[in-house]
Amino acid sequence: MEKWKFQGNQGLKSSAVSVRGVFNVLMQSISKEKEVVHLCRVDPTDNPLFSADPVAAHAVSTAAHSGNFNGYPPTFGLPQARRAIAEYLSRDLPNKLSAEDVYVTVGATQAIEIILPSVFATPGANILLPRPGFPQYETRAALCGLEVRHFDLLPNSSWEVDIDSLEALADDKTMAMVLISPSNPCGNVFTYQHLKRVAETARKLGIFVISDEVYAHIAFGSNPFVPMGVFSSIVPIAANIERNMEITSDPPTFMQAAIPEILERTNDEFYSKNLDITREAANALYERFKEIPSLICPHKPDGAMAVMVQINLSQIEGIADDVDFCVKLAKEESLLILPGVIVGLKNWLRVSFGLERSAIEEGLNRLKAFCLRHAKMSQQISA
Amino acid sequence: MEKWKFQGNQGLKSSAVSVRGVFNVLMQSISKEKEVVHLCRVDPTDNPLFSADPVAAHAVSTAAHSGNFNGYPPTFGLPQARRAIAEYLSRDLPNKLSAEDVYVTVGATQAIEIILPSVFATPGANILLPRPGFPQYETRAALCGLEVRHFDLLPNSSWEVDIDSLEALADDKTMAMVLISPSNPCGNVFTYQHLKRVAETARKLGIFVISDEVYAHIAFGSNPFVPMGVFSSIVPIAANIERNMEITSDPPTFMQAAIPEILERTNDEFYSKNLDITREAANALYERFKEIPSLICPHKPDGAMAVMVQINLSQIEGIADDVDFCVKLAKEESLLILPGVIVGLKNWLRVSFGLERSAIEEGLNRLKAFCLRHAKMSQQISA
Repeated sequence: MEKWKFQGNQGLKSSAVSVRGVFNVLMQSISKEKEVVHLCRVDPTDNPLFSADPVAAHAVSTAAHSGNFNGYPPTFGLPQARRAIAEYLSRDLPNKLSAEDVYVTVGATQAIEIILPSVFATPGANILLPRPGFPQYETRAALCGLEVRHFDLLPNSSWEVDIDSLEALADDKTMAMVLISPSNPCGNVFTYQHLKRVAETARKLGIFVISDEVYAHIAFGSNPFVPMGVFSSIVPIAANIERNMEITSDPPTFMQAAIPEILERTNDEFYSKNLDITREAANALYERFKEIPSLICPHKPDGAMAVMVQINLSQIEGIADDVDFCVKLAKEESLLILPGVIVGLKNWLRVSFGLERSAIEEGLNRLKAFCLRHAKMSQQISA
Repeated sequence: MEKWKFQGNQGLKSSAVSVRGVFNVLMQSISKEKEVVHLCRVDPTDNPLFSADPVAAHAVSTAAHSGNFNGYPPTFGLPQARRAIAEYLSRDLPNKLSAEDVYVTVGATQAIEIILPSVFATPGANILLPRPGFPQYETRAALCGLEVRHFDLLPNSSWEVDIDSLEALADDKTMAMVLISPSNPCGNVFTYQHLKRVAETARKLGIFVISDEVYAHIAFGSNPFVPMGVFSSIVPIAANIERNMEITSDPPTFMQAAIPEILERTNDEFYSKNLDITREAANALYERFKEIPSLICPHKPDGAMAVMVQINLSQIEGIADDVDFCVKLAKEESLLILPGVIVGLKNWLRVSFGLERSAIEEGLNRLKAFCLRHAKMSQQISA
């Protein structure tokens, strides 16, 4: 017989859409007439404006040439890397971390992949995720049979957690909540006081806090970044992930070996220069949104590299929703912006600003032209 | 309230034991009197004897210093890396691969992690795995709800697949089979004729072949390595893994960028030198086993870096099974060898030989002393 039985994993196919998947759809919508402008990806590292500190390349090169770091690393990470990370993070914490508190993963994506199934997937368990949020959490939760419940971040209260809705969602099957600060995709940085309230609420509910702090270095507004670890006496922040790490891929050993040098030798100017660029870009973006009546940006970004903008559909015609908006925007203006539905907010946009000023100005010019062209007649007259 | 609900993932805890987990148990059994000898790990890259070709460090360093490869890579891999890998693999194939046939993963571990759940986890599906085999497959299959059925590799037929048992296992829910060549942990290299029979059987059964060829370069015996892709006209070797790759971690971009240079510039002497060392080690190991009456090595290794050795328990006393054997061996001789149960064969040993001759000689001296000390009285008299 020659009938192949393979049909693919239906569960996977029907799970939450990914940022990358939608990005690919938008890419295909682009007309070739104008050069593409991306206000879409949150990856400044491929932009020459945000060049990496040469310290990093030097550290990696030294480790590779040493010949000492070509074997498998220890399961939870190279001891010197874990120690350096623990010392680095402890600078801002009242309870110092030890090397044993640190687990080195292949980026934050693998950290999510490891922590969700290994820790929380008891039968019937649920997890509380922020809306808007980072869709990788939804996708991974679905893959490990973990029920997802969303609590709201409040656009008109600096995107703070709706504590009442958080409490109402939790039950005795709730294992944990996720909080992302500085926030992707909202661009806010949670205050000390608000994080303390979240920690106290989590303690009351008896749930873990998974604190996603990948943008810890990108806080450029008036709220300084506060690590959730500050409240570790109130609520457990980490969890036992060791069993699952025994079966996952490891970060390349020589790259782990480069970590101590990178953390020790990267100087403050590297961060301050990039923060200056990002702050300026965020401010420019926020000011330009005020010129576009059909878009509402409720909160000036304080951190991270993206911000949420609401589409006032009542002022626009011929556009069904945020996805339709973004597909037409790609087609008509060669401008890429992610629809909010990807991060959990329908009829919003996620606009990233980890870019040079010229790209932001050009992008906002096109966005404004697009919105004016699609504005309802009554709006055009009054504008 | 302050009762934490977290209990860990019971499914994960009870799933198959991992090589690393058992390795850690053995490490704890070691007495501190003698220096430890490892005939246990299959990782020659941390041994100065098998130093990496400087081409690799140079390529990685160049890519890191270029500053061009610091952003996220494309989902399936950097185009130049995919192209270089396709060209490299195509040298030995009748049907040439294109760049689009290649998916770049974080090592083979992530390849297993991606391919099993994304492709084969339809409800009730099963997969056929070799016994002995590589336990990562069992662990990943359990995590994605895929039923595992084992077909035997035959120790007295050069560890070839028991084709009859393979056919008897398959039913209409069987999606795929895994074959590892050169074989970990058996050390054999499957012949062209045998692989062709496997491919024809898979075609008859209507199942995919997942061909694990991580040791393609390590064939030093009389059987040359034959890639399963040679039989791609008979049976599909690859599969649609794209959807799952959208949500996994990527190999670091600058490391992908180094791949073309590494594949192009690593010269044949690098491989031939390492093959000579490995062949000599394998032969020495095989000869030394003949001196130990209670151990039986049925097949002289042709490839990979490990071999299976049977314990004749009827000739030994005070030892319950292979795990007991290895724990006592660690305690009494500071010698680390993996119990066969880890790879699916109870009361066998998996002995690795990717080591310098002195370590092999010292290890086998200790193994022989241990076996003689635990030999049954009748054996000691006759010996």
